[in-house]
Amino acid sequence: MLRIERAILSRLDHPMDFYELVSGLDYDLRSIISALNGLGDRGFIRVRDGLIERTVDFQDRRLTEAALEVVKREFARLTRNRPEPVVRFDQGYVTVESVMNRLRVLDSRDDLAGASLLLVGDDDLTSLAVCLTGLPARVAVAEIDRRLLDFLDQRRQDLPIPLELYEYDVRSPLPAKLLEAFDVSLCDPLETEQGFRLFVMRCREALVGPGSALYFGLTDVECPPERWLGFQEFLVGMGLRITDLWRSLHRYVLPERDFVLEEIEGARKYIRSDGRNSPRIPWYHSSLVRAELVSAHKRFPRVVSEGADIYH
Amino acid sequence: MLRIERAILSRLDHPMDFYELVSGLDYDLRSIISALNGLGDRGFIRVRDGLIERTVDFQDRRLTEAALEVVKREFARLTRNRPEPVVRFDQGYVTVESVMNRLRVLDSRDDLAGASLLLVGDDDLTSLAVCLTGLPARVAVAEIDRRLLDFLDQRRQDLPIPLELYEYDVRSPLPAKLLEAFDVSLCDPLETEQGFRLFVMRCREALVGPGSALYFGLTDVECPPERWLGFQEFLVGMGLRITDLWRSLHRYVLPERDFVLEEIEGARKYIRSDGRNSPRIPWYHSSLVRAELVSAHKRFPRVVSEGADIYH
Repeated sequence: MLRIERAILSRLDHPMDFYELVSGLDYDLRSIISALNGLGDRGFIRVRDGLIERTVDFQDRRLTEAALEVVKREFARLTRNRPEPVVRFDQGYVTVESVMNRLRVLDSRDDLAGASLLLVGDDDLTSLAVCLTGLPARVAVAEIDRRLLDFLDQRRQDLPIPLELYEYDVRSPLPAKLLEAFDVSLCDPLETEQGFRLFVMRCREALVGPGSALYFGLTDVECPPERWLGFQEFLVGMGLRITDLWRSLHRYVLPERDFVLEEIEGARKYIRSDGRNSPRIPWYHSSLVRAELVSAHKRFPRVVSEGADIYH
Repeated sequence: MLRIERAILSRLDHPMDFYELVSGLDYDLRSIISALNGLGDRGFIRVRDGLIERTVDFQDRRLTEAALEVVKREFARLTRNRPEPVVRFDQGYVTVESVMNRLRVLDSRDDLAGASLLLVGDDDLTSLAVCLTGLPARVAVAEIDRRLLDFLDQRRQDLPIPLELYEYDVRSPLPAKLLEAFDVSLCDPLETEQGFRLFVMRCREALVGPGSALYFGLTDVECPPERWLGFQEFLVGMGLRITDLWRSLHRYVLPERDFVLEEIEGARKYIRSDGRNSPRIPWYHSSLVRAELVSAHKRFPRVVSEGADIYH
């Protein structure tokens, strides 16, 4: 079932007129009408006395705040003793609250219930939270770090829906089973010129078709405006349009020793050398961007050779 | 004073360490450090015992919800008996609450207090609300509709800061006084291929330089994904990167007769011909996008000839 069809059916919890329906949908009118026609032809809806009503059982599977509280508790339990971040892979994971924010966002955009999701890299262990909601149809993780894969593997039996795991380096082609197979793909890409493009390209290749969506995190803290612009040019070239941008949705858990500031010229002046104001708050933040595949474009960038240094 | 400098000074309402400061700022570290150096050189801040503090009086001029309530009341009063929308100019104005949302957004992005703002087209009368906050340094309106200009002119004496008015057709070059002169420009562009580009180009031409921002409304209701993508390609080409996107921030006041649906094939089936479910709610919604000028790019599209039809 298409995302727009799921969105319509889940909103039709009572008979409503066309205006009430459109009022709560972020789709263009032509797509809505075409989806309504399709649902009507298959007997899922009917129009009576100017009201549109659902004629089939369709469980309104949205993520309530109460359900999210349960997911949060379980997620905190499952991720205790998680592997610590490795600087070599530019890791650094987001807080539990940030992962919950991601779930809220996915749900609000009809990208959770009934959807198939791929995470390209899962340092944040978001896959566990996604599975804990019990809402998606399929969840897969493609990850380079053996430690994380082992950790996820150990947690699998506690999840209400199965979790597929793949050992994967973004510099290699995607496994055939992951190509053009997902409604939604997510990554927290490297922010280097090449690294960002590679991650997003892989997420793009995993999408099943027009209307599917790709999510990525990107921060103003380290990524200068010029690079943000270049990345947006890249997205457009891949046929991806930005549909949503949530500022500072993520906060990060960083190691005590602050390697981010050490790399920046002139920063010393503003931090004490005795470490007395080492970070006490999750100060590092990034935005979450949603981009949607549009049919007309299908350009792909050149492939990066295996073994290339994409971290600098 | 630069936007980033205003942002830093307004947040320094108590001495804070670098991490606390960065935690609340959406700028990259290099720009923040450079701004801190600049403020230090001019004696506006100093670093003491690892804490950054303001050494000058700087009124923290942010828009509180209490102040917004007053603005809302005044705005509702001033806009009573406003000119009704004209289909010829593709007009249709947003609700009072939507205008207040715009103010919240401008304030949250440091684009209100101390800033200079140009509105290219002001069917929504947002300029009145902006002036009522008393926060900007300069506010100007360039508008084609003589009725709206007259109406704004009549309301001018009730505003705490002056409002500049220009009779202006986007197909003509911007008046010299408005070129490269504003921190912020706003428009609610036509959503036709040419119309959108023209409005955004004029807003772009009004910006003073890198870091200044342009806001526009755009809707999923009528604008299909392909066109959204094309518009994003256009933005990138103009050196504008999207920094924020607030979905469905605006709701519209539309005329009783629904000309939007009449244009769409297949829509009849879902609305009653006896008009019994004519719109009873503000169902038509659009998003607000903020795009920021990045230094590196300066491409301009070809100019549309005067008198061209940009409405279809």
